[in-house]
Amino acid sequence: MKKLINDPEHVVTEALAGMAEAHPGLRVDLENKVIFRRSAPSPGKVGLVSGGGSGHEPLHGGFVGYGMLDAACPGEVFTSPVPDQIIEATKGVDGGAGVLHIVKNYTGDVLNFEMAAELCAEEGVEVASVLVNDDVAVKDSLYTAGRRGTGATVFVEKIAGALAETGASLAEVAKTGEEVNARSRSFGVALSPCTVPAAGRPTFELGPSEVELGIGIHGEPGRTRAPIAPARELARVAMDAVHTDMPLSGDCLVMVNGMGGTPLAELYIVFAEVAAYLREKGATPARSLVGNYVTSLEMRGFSVTVCRLTDDLTRLWDAPVETPALRWGR
Amino acid sequence: MKKLINDPEHVVTEALAGMAEAHPGLRVDLENKVIFRRSAPSPGKVGLVSGGGSGHEPLHGGFVGYGMLDAACPGEVFTSPVPDQIIEATKGVDGGAGVLHIVKNYTGDVLNFEMAAELCAEEGVEVASVLVNDDVAVKDSLYTAGRRGTGATVFVEKIAGALAETGASLAEVAKTGEEVNARSRSFGVALSPCTVPAAGRPTFELGPSEVELGIGIHGEPGRTRAPIAPARELARVAMDAVHTDMPLSGDCLVMVNGMGGTPLAELYIVFAEVAAYLREKGATPARSLVGNYVTSLEMRGFSVTVCRLTDDLTRLWDAPVETPALRWGR
Repeated sequence: MKKLINDPEHVVTEALAGMAEAHPGLRVDLENKVIFRRSAPSPGKVGLVSGGGSGHEPLHGGFVGYGMLDAACPGEVFTSPVPDQIIEATKGVDGGAGVLHIVKNYTGDVLNFEMAAELCAEEGVEVASVLVNDDVAVKDSLYTAGRRGTGATVFVEKIAGALAETGASLAEVAKTGEEVNARSRSFGVALSPCTVPAAGRPTFELGPSEVELGIGIHGEPGRTRAPIAPARELARVAMDAVHTDMPLSGDCLVMVNGMGGTPLAELYIVFAEVAAYLREKGATPARSLVGNYVTSLEMRGFSVTVCRLTDDLTRLWDAPVETPALRWGR
Repeated sequence: MKKLINDPEHVVTEALAGMAEAHPGLRVDLENKVIFRRSAPSPGKVGLVSGGGSGHEPLHGGFVGYGMLDAACPGEVFTSPVPDQIIEATKGVDGGAGVLHIVKNYTGDVLNFEMAAELCAEEGVEVASVLVNDDVAVKDSLYTAGRRGTGATVFVEKIAGALAETGASLAEVAKTGEEVNARSRSFGVALSPCTVPAAGRPTFELGPSEVELGIGIHGEPGRTRAPIAPARELARVAMDAVHTDMPLSGDCLVMVNGMGGTPLAELYIVFAEVAAYLREKGATPARSLVGNYVTSLEMRGFSVTVCRLTDDLTRLWDAPVETPALRWGR
């Protein structure tokens, strides 16, 4: 196994130490493994907490900052954060207006966030939660009952985060987060597997000319395997899966996301195909992200996430944001 | 070969089409293969043009925008842009104050930029150029006489770009670009090779436990091969090479750059080691970039680039920038 690490057991802590060095706007609690916005808690503002297994960077720690999350709880690689972490984060960002948990739909994540929310509630912190389950590829999977949560998490975090900055209530922020999730769908394609440092071997095998259609972000199986095909065809498979589940129309926010090991030029080629597909259906790629946002270590491949925008959601998407991985307009 | 492409011959044009879709602030001339800032030319402002082989994205097209480049000329993958492209770009960004070419030191790039500069000069466009040659790994290489130009290109483009926005003269902008290059050094380490689409096979071979120390951004050989070692040791090899050539002191701007296929968490682990090394030498990691900035397709590995800052250079680094790949403070 060739990786830029010191010790497979300390990957998460050592990466957090690097984040703390690189981003003075963050306060990283290395002992509890929580990444805080330096200014947290913000009195009167709803606090936003997300988290999940590590190995998906920049998700979630790279989205902590003004206009997005107040804290993120990274679990071990591809492993849910523990309730103690989530409690630490929740209490640490409570500015009196309550805290929103943004949770990807994996059984471990859901259970641990729920447990933390209950314990925080007992201590007087009001907690609401948004469950993200945008991946249309499969229903029920290796780590999930129901659909998996993937790329739409970035949209929910950004848009709910922008609304929270305006002083909106916990109920309003939660409702908008749910709306973003409800209007979003994703589908992923893998060209290669990835290797969890502590395991030391690839999570699955793919033949030299094979791709996995509908891959999950931990390498969970998708719908089927197929021979490698032109980007145009792979993009069409992904977009057909999205469009079948949620007919595309109007202004769309589109993310073409790398899995960690995909050259940026390839993502732009896929994005051009996705944009053409949207126009063909009468929809418009009005806003976009192209790059590595929800990764699976060094996996090669892409996922596409589409959110059907409303005027309000567009305004919130465009609002200023200042995090390590997403930054504009301030 | 598994890649997200349609046709190996059209990779660059199709990626450019995706960039044009994704970034409304750019104007992409698909026929001449030039990425322009939409507002170019800016009357009275020095125009900045860079370019080089494709496959290093986001370099250079991702750095076109306010506070950085006015245009970029992408050649075919790992191939110099042709003089016609560079002429088109140079004329297109000339706002009457002259144009600065920022050129990485590869023989083909240097020749083609020189030829374009001469032809533009004949047509009355004043052109100056900055040669970037920051890579301490080897002197003379596969495509280079002298040192190769790598990561410092990002620093030169950002800092010269910021100065140009203030209305500085061509001579001043060129002088500052040269100063940044003179104060910067880089060193790269590869964990895997990469595959040029038109070639269809890896540029070189590495054993399952081998790394290449001092790798170039096209997979050119470095100083030596060595067994994979902890990130701490690899970071030390890179930083020793830099420090031996340019003793480190004072405030430093540090980039830990992915080669395209490296997980972000690994880059943060390397960054923590690099920061510790700097402190050990009495220097400070005052500013930083951690991520994919100068890539080699899907190569795994990292490079580190250090620039010894001055107060003026720090101010210019901190100045607002708004490009696809670098954006802050506006």
